[in-house]
Amino acid sequence: GFAQIDHHRELRQGFPEVIYGEGKTKEQILAIMKSLAEESRHNVMATHVSAEKADFVRNELPDAVYDEVSRILYIEQKRSEPVDETRRILVLSAGTSDIPVAEEAALTARLMGNAVDTCFDVGVAGIHRLFAHKEEIVKANVIIVTAGMEGALASVVGGLTDKPVIAVPTSVGYGASFHGVSALLAMLNCCAAGVAVMNIDNGFGAGVLAGKINRMR
Amino acid sequence: GFAQIDHHRELRQGFPEVIYGEGKTKEQILAIMKSLAEESRHNVMATHVSAEKADFVRNELPDAVYDEVSRILYIEQKRSEPVDETRRILVLSAGTSDIPVAEEAALTARLMGNAVDTCFDVGVAGIHRLFAHKEEIVKANVIIVTAGMEGALASVVGGLTDKPVIAVPTSVGYGASFHGVSALLAMLNCCAAGVAVMNIDNGFGAGVLAGKINRMR
Amino acid sequence: GFAQIDHHRELRQGFPEVIYGEGKTKEQILAIMKSLAEESRHNVMATHVSAEKADFVRNELPDAVYDEVSRILYIEQKRSEPVDETRRILVLSAGTSDIPVAEEAALTARLMGNAVDTCFDVGVAGIHRLFAHKEEIVKANVIIVTAGMEGALASVVGGLTDKPVIAVPTSVGYGASFHGVSALLAMLNCCAAGVAVMNIDNGFGAGVLAGKINRMR
Amino acid sequence: GFAQIDHHRELRQGFPEVIYGEGKTKEQILAIMKSLAEESRHNVMATHVSAEKADFVRNELPDAVYDEVSRILYIEQKRSEPVDETRRILVLSAGTSDIPVAEEAALTARLMGNAVDTCFDVGVAGIHRLFAHKEEIVKANVIIVTAGMEGALASVVGGLTDKPVIAVPTSVGYGASFHGVSALLAMLNCCAAGVAVMNIDNGFGAGVLAGKINRMR
Amino acid sequence: GFAQIDHHRELRQGFPEVIYGEGKTKEQILAIMKSLAEESRHNVMATHVSAEKADFVRNELPDAVYDEVSRILYIEQKRSEPVDETRRILVLSAGTSDIPVAEEAALTARLMGNAVDTCFDVGVAGIHRLFAHKEEIVKANVIIVTAGMEGALASVVGGLTDKPVIAVPTSVGYGASFHGVSALLAMLNCCAAGVAVMNIDNGFGAGVLAGKINRMR
Amino acid sequence: GFAQIDHHRELRQGFPEVIYGEGKTKEQILAIMKSLAEESRHNVMATHVSAEKADFVRNELPDAVYDEVSRILYIEQKRSEPVDETRRILVLSAGTSDIPVAEEAALTARLMGNAVDTCFDVGVAGIHRLFAHKEEIVKANVIIVTAGMEGALASVVGGLTDKPVIAVPTSVGYGASFHGVSALLAMLNCCAAGVAVMNIDNGFGAGVLAGKINRMR
Amino acid sequence: GFAQIDHHRELRQGFPEVIYGEGKTKEQILAIMKSLAEESRHNVMATHVSAEKADFVRNELPDAVYDEVSRILYIEQKRSEPVDETRRILVLSAGTSDIPVAEEAALTARLMGNAVDTCFDVGVAGIHRLFAHKEEIVKANVIIVTAGMEGALASVVGGLTDKPVIAVPTSVGYGASFHGVSALLAMLNCCAAGVAVMNIDNGFGAGVLAGKINRMR
Amino acid sequence: GFAQIDHHRELRQGFPEVIYGEGKTKEQILAIMKSLAEESRHNVMATHVSAEKADFVRNELPDAVYDEVSRILYIEQKRSEPVDETRRILVLSAGTSDIPVAEEAALTARLMGNAVDTCFDVGVAGIHRLFAHKEEIVKANVIIVTAGMEGALASVVGGLTDKPVIAVPTSVGYGASFHGVSALLAMLNCCAAGVAVMNIDNGFGAGVLAGKINRMR
Ligand SMILES: Nc1ncnc2c1ncn2[C@@H]1O[C@H](COP(=O)(O)O)[C@@H](O)[C@H]1O
Ligand SMILES: Nc1ncnc2c1ncn2[C@@H]1O[C@H](COP(=O)(O)O)[C@@H](O)[C@H]1O
Ligand SMILES: Nc1ncnc2c1ncn2[C@@H]1O[C@H](COP(=O)(O)O)[C@@H](O)[C@H]1O
Ligand SMILES: Nc1ncnc2c1ncn2[C@@H]1O[C@H](COP(=O)(O)O)[C@@H](O)[C@H]1O
Ligand SMILES: [Mg+2]
Ligand SMILES: [Mg+2]
Ligand SMILES: [Mg+2]
Ligand SMILES: [Mg+2]
Ligand SMILES: [Mg+2]
Ligand SMILES: [Mg+2]
Ligand SMILES: [Mg+2]
Ligand SMILES: [Mg+2]
Repeated sequence: GFAQIDHHRELRQGFPEVIYGEGKTKEQILAIMKSLAEESRHNVMATHVSAEKADFVRNELPDAVYDEVSRILYIEQKRSEPVDETRRILVLSAGTSDIPVAEEAALTARLMGNAVDTCFDVGVAGIHRLFAHKEEIVKANVIIVTAGMEGALASVVGGLTDKPVIAVPTSVGYGASFHGVSALLAMLNCCAAGVAVMNIDNGFGAGVLAGKINRMR
Repeated sequence: GFAQIDHHRELRQGFPEVIYGEGKTKEQILAIMKSLAEESRHNVMATHVSAEKADFVRNELPDAVYDEVSRILYIEQKRSEPVDETRRILVLSAGTSDIPVAEEAALTARLMGNAVDTCFDVGVAGIHRLFAHKEEIVKANVIIVTAGMEGALASVVGGLTDKPVIAVPTSVGYGASFHGVSALLAMLNCCAAGVAVMNIDNGFGAGVLAGKINRMR
Repeated sequence: GFAQIDHHRELRQGFPEVIYGEGKTKEQILAIMKSLAEESRHNVMATHVSAEKADFVRNELPDAVYDEVSRILYIEQKRSEPVDETRRILVLSAGTSDIPVAEEAALTARLMGNAVDTCFDVGVAGIHRLFAHKEEIVKANVIIVTAGMEGALASVVGGLTDKPVIAVPTSVGYGASFHGVSALLAMLNCCAAGVAVMNIDNGFGAGVLAGKINRMR
Repeated sequence: GFAQIDHHRELRQGFPEVIYGEGKTKEQILAIMKSLAEESRHNVMATHVSAEKADFVRNELPDAVYDEVSRILYIEQKRSEPVDETRRILVLSAGTSDIPVAEEAALTARLMGNAVDTCFDVGVAGIHRLFAHKEEIVKANVIIVTAGMEGALASVVGGLTDKPVIAVPTSVGYGASFHGVSALLAMLNCCAAGVAVMNIDNGFGAGVLAGKINRMR
Repeated sequence: GFAQIDHHRELRQGFPEVIYGEGKTKEQILAIMKSLAEESRHNVMATHVSAEKADFVRNELPDAVYDEVSRILYIEQKRSEPVDETRRILVLSAGTSDIPVAEEAALTARLMGNAVDTCFDVGVAGIHRLFAHKEEIVKANVIIVTAGMEGALASVVGGLTDKPVIAVPTSVGYGASFHGVSALLAMLNCCAAGVAVMNIDNGFGAGVLAGKINRMR
Repeated sequence: GFAQIDHHRELRQGFPEVIYGEGKTKEQILAIMKSLAEESRHNVMATHVSAEKADFVRNELPDAVYDEVSRILYIEQKRSEPVDETRRILVLSAGTSDIPVAEEAALTARLMGNAVDTCFDVGVAGIHRLFAHKEEIVKANVIIVTAGMEGALASVVGGLTDKPVIAVPTSVGYGASFHGVSALLAMLNCCAAGVAVMNIDNGFGAGVLAGKINRMR
Repeated sequence: GFAQIDHHRELRQGFPEVIYGEGKTKEQILAIMKSLAEESRHNVMATHVSAEKADFVRNELPDAVYDEVSRILYIEQKRSEPVDETRRILVLSAGTSDIPVAEEAALTARLMGNAVDTCFDVGVAGIHRLFAHKEEIVKANVIIVTAGMEGALASVVGGLTDKPVIAVPTSVGYGASFHGVSALLAMLNCCAAGVAVMNIDNGFGAGVLAGKINRMR
Repeated sequence: GFAQIDHHRELRQGFPEVIYGEGKTKEQILAIMKSLAEESRHNVMATHVSAEKADFVRNELPDAVYDEVSRILYIEQKRSEPVDETRRILVLSAGTSDIPVAEEAALTARLMGNAVDTCFDVGVAGIHRLFAHKEEIVKANVIIVTAGMEGALASVVGGLTDKPVIAVPTSVGYGASFHGVSALLAMLNCCAAGVAVMNIDNGFGAGVLAGKINRMR
């Protein structure tokens, strides 16, 4: 067919291929999702899925669940409960508008078997809001920071913790934010050392990386 | 001659024209400086002046002083002591490498008759260093923030004060800092409302603006 | 909830948090607006609000007023009349198409308690139109200049006054205006010293900064 | 040889090929200059020539003259005096640092037989300096404006005259001037209609175009 | 009102202010057009006018004519016939898709009283098509070249004639044409000396400049 | 008419002019297609044709065929079967979303008389999928690689074969893919020597070049 | 002094502040290094140090060691031998020219107490060279990939392992590599999910992040 | 050692690995060159080699030859004479300054066993110079076009021939040529279909591709 599904990926990377829903028809998403669900005993997921495509797929695959905020469509074949509740991933967002990207990261990490906490709207313009969550930050094992506009939250958080920090620039903003470029550049130039940067709006990638790190032992 | 010195500027704007030293020969700088010093009773200054050009001018004009860090050459014709010691301008720098730009801002403001304090190397990667200066921030009348790389300091400071904040991106950094573009974009997209942005490395402009604001009453 | 409203901002900065309406649902705007109006005795405002969202909120909150030109939705809880009529902010626009941004600046400043004058369509292609308003320029305490295309108005005005000038590039233009980038770059490189630059189309920020400066004494 | 000199150009365009000195060795410039001088009875010129290359060529070709400011090397074979003194080209510069580009334009136009006036350092930050030259502007047949930084002079001049205006952005400036890009964009977006734009620092092209227009009748 | 119509422009520049229709409501266009038509005895025109806005205006002003291709709305108050039929402006287009921009240039020049010829779809991929029109090129007084994609036509035409050439990059193309940037850069770097460049899609400006040049004598 | 069809192109280049459907009306496409079909005995094709325009043309020209995936409309006047079945062009795609561009390349090459194989969704994230097709790669005469995002497939394939490789970046991706720029830059910087790069999404050009190379002998 | 050394960092992040040598004088580097060495019992390091500055410091601090390839100057106060030899970080480079950045990453990680292996010049143009090291890749705990030009190595490695991969774009290349931008964009758009990206040439940051991940348990 | 020489490349691609001299020390170049010359019976070459490094290597390897114009250092182990004199590659340059890139292409192709002709300084500003070489163009098997500035030569040549055309943008120019970006974009948007584009200044890659195509049969 049109796709060469990488059924081998689960073996190589511990999780089946994830469907990128953007350029695909609803029929294509359905077909790949079915095939993956049959071949794998893991959870199966598709990102960047519109509500309309999700409806179509769920008609055929009643087990599929659609999360409207993150726009992820998934089938939970394996209990997504984390093996180890003490190892927690914390997902922060700078503003309210960054929540969809933050939720994409959080749900991805959960579906891959991680314990995930979220804490939204704690941007640096009112920095006491961040410090109010200092305890969660300290006890987290991995931290994901999503922020648009000037993306400064990543630098501040990166300076507060000795745990891996993953920064996701979002396309939130206008004018010279250039659809996320300002936040991306800020995060790449983070003065706190060792912050991992993802593509603009790539909450999914952040969830995957956080999951990989979180299961190390 | 080659230049049409704007002797009228002092009348219009309260300070004589400032010489931009970059594209000018040492002879041109000397000639304009002399002419300005004669026509005005204010301080006279030139920015972006190399040590070598400054030496040449100071040979002819022994009253001229050269500040190596900010690369400003000036003649103090009027006491630069501030009229009002209680109205203070605070100049912050995120790192050590931003000091030249910060000093350009500070010296410009001083020469225009303002009380100026400085506080360097207080970037967000170790945010306690900034909070250690909270009192100075609170009592300042105008705050200038110089920062390269991701420029996050402007956003944090902008959220802590109700006074005007002037952000100067610096060209400090490498790679995707693009000679100050990352800091510039960050500052333009500052989530703290109303932060004034200057051109990259334009400490001079920040000093001028801070001075204009500081003398309002 | 989804948002961590910064109720502390009024204390810190003299005005409650302003809602950025772009990425929020109408229900979210309503909820935050209500909460802010209850906690604060100041005016409450949201920017970048569509007519449709405004209608929804005004159904629930009849005190809310919607300004179609600036797209600001606000509740006037405190008389917005300026304390001091002699300290005036002047908002200029280069063309007719820059008016929405100019009005966003003007209304923001008014809601924060300032006396504001406006003067539109005085761009440099017919510079006598600007000079016809010289008196208003001279008597203004702070001047906001909004301009798209080549943004030259900021430089000309910056050279005429000794008061703080705030330049707002607008996205007006086509082709190589790159949605406001040409005006932004022009303003950052302003040969008149000390002009404050805001993000493209950020009339709101200009209003806030002008207000901060205007209340200094 | 290495070059296919376009000896036909004089016939087609009224002036021999002009040598672009940048990428050429001093021997190559000498050889082409000699060949052009022999084949043509017009003036022969090379642009972007370093002082060192010019010295070498002038040793061999004593008739060659080198203008240090514009970096043009030329042989005046035909009197460069203008046919018609009443048709004058006016070359303006915004600052002192734009003079080299302005002089490149002026000398090019002169060598092609035009009457040229210059007027430097009349940028918009002190706009009275420009208005002091209103008469020259009004009586000029074609006007060339050279300006770096925000390039606003082109728009103001374009609005004052009904004659063709040619705008040359210069690489003068720093930071967000991006080596002339800010001035280039400003000039392309000029709100005064019909301003002709040249490449950054291309005084030569402006001189050629002004000459072409000036000889129309 | 909202606009400060520059009624003085006709005196200064020989043609009334031209309305830029993009950011204006249909009511605004109608009002300005009426005012201009009353004050002036020249033709009155508005560019970038949608068919829908044009319909509205023409209902109120039956003398107004709408040209669908160039999207110009105009009132012909003065016969647009050229004073001098022997001085002709030639407008070329590289492809079929560049015609709207070419027609904007042509109609603008005609309304300002020039004799205009057009010749479309003569791009360099089949260069014999251009050479088939050599005679028209030779006899033209001013030439306008509109081209998208790689904009090479301007260079070829610039090398064939000794008359002023005005190059208008168009936004025709896809991918790395970046909405006209590729053509714009090509034209700015034109190896034929002295080609005037306009903003992307700015047929109007080209028409104005061509008209200014064409009436020189 | 509006177009100067290059009927001479078939003589010069062995295939009639191909219509670029984007900026043209359905009537224009019909007219040019008819004219080309009459003058030529070759296949006639138009690219970038919407389904709606294709329907209109096919109503008038029943011989026209529309390929929905590649959006090519064509008339097969000459059997498109390859002269030489042993000389095969192989078209690869990195993902499922790159298929439309890949099919544009494949169909173009077929209509020009080449034997074409395709192999989709073999991107480097699961590189065994590519190696599974090693035999096809080795036996291909020319290889076209279409890839979006990071475009790495071109480098890997370029290193595996001694045959000409043509790389087509696609606009597939989001965020910092910048509509194909990331893939374009990657392909231009390909560490495998001699890979030919086409414009973003230009499957058509790749098909043409592959055809030109494939018929060499 | 000029710097506010963040002596608290070791407590917060497990390693003392690292000196960025670029914008600092040799005296400043010496002073900070001394101060850090006294306050801390950990290793102390400075990056981006020129050979000449290093010589100066080593004269005063004989314990300091300079690594010419990575340009790191360090004092080994604590044995840098890894606590756990079985947890290994693998640093790959695509070409020979990427080695300095790769070594910066490797030495940083070693000084922070990690076991590090390196494997250079294994770029994708000869992919068998990479596969020859498959075993090392499989047994590594964290992998750092340094690559310039098209940066494709990160995608291929990212697809081969289930361990965290950190990608460092280098400024190696010319032309459209834009000093590392092409590799940076490629890595941000990596089709293998969850690859962490660092700033261009930021081997140091990669070493820090790898170290943070490697000590998780 | 530092490099993993790809000795297998000759088998895979018919020519040994070519050394990129830029980031390597003279010792590294010598070592790799020696190793390649021993393992292979083909010609061995290094590009981007400075005169100084070449001298060092030639001292040790007297068989090595250095071409100053193209900056290629090579050892001719196999007669570079073309197998088939009738299949000729033609290398064109638009200006004199493009010759180094053109020669890099020509010498690369020659060392790989092709018959190569060159024809320089035939840019489109004097297009008769190109047409004077029409016969060579028609009889060439593959054509390489090198051009800086606006890169228009590629489009004109692409329209004249039915043979594969390879376009190499050069960094020749100034201002808005952006070190070759203008020519690169022009070539990517070439209206003549199927032109292959290489990286800026990549004469080497063009030579390789031309060689691959030329040996097809
Ligand atoms: N460092 C600086 N940055 C920006 N503008 C400056 C600087 N120094 C001086 N200026 C301005 O540059 C103008 C002088 O330009 P010029 O005529 O080229 O000497 C004056 O109007 C100053 O306001
Ligand atoms: N038009 C605007 N432009 C820039 N910032 C804004 C605007 N409107 C509101 N804000 C700021 O955005 C912040 C609220 O962001 P959020 O948490 O996403 O609602 C507040 O701190 C405001 O200062
Ligand atoms: N400063 C300059 N800027 C732009 N073009 C120039 C300049 N000087 C000479 N030229 C043009 O460059 C061409 C010569 O290029 P070349 O063959 O490289 O010598 C001539 O056609 C001139 O019209
Ligand atoms: N998809 C395409 N991409 C690039 N060029 C094309 C495409 N389709 C057709 N062309 C070329 O566009 C030219 C026709 O342009 P036009 O005169 O605007 O119809 C022909 O020379 C074709 O070679
Ligand atoms: Mg908020
Ligand atoms: Mg520090
Ligand atoms: Mg107006
Ligand atoms: Mg001056
Ligand atoms: Mg056509
Ligand atoms: Mg796939
Ligand atoms: Mg190698
Ligand atoms: Mg030449």
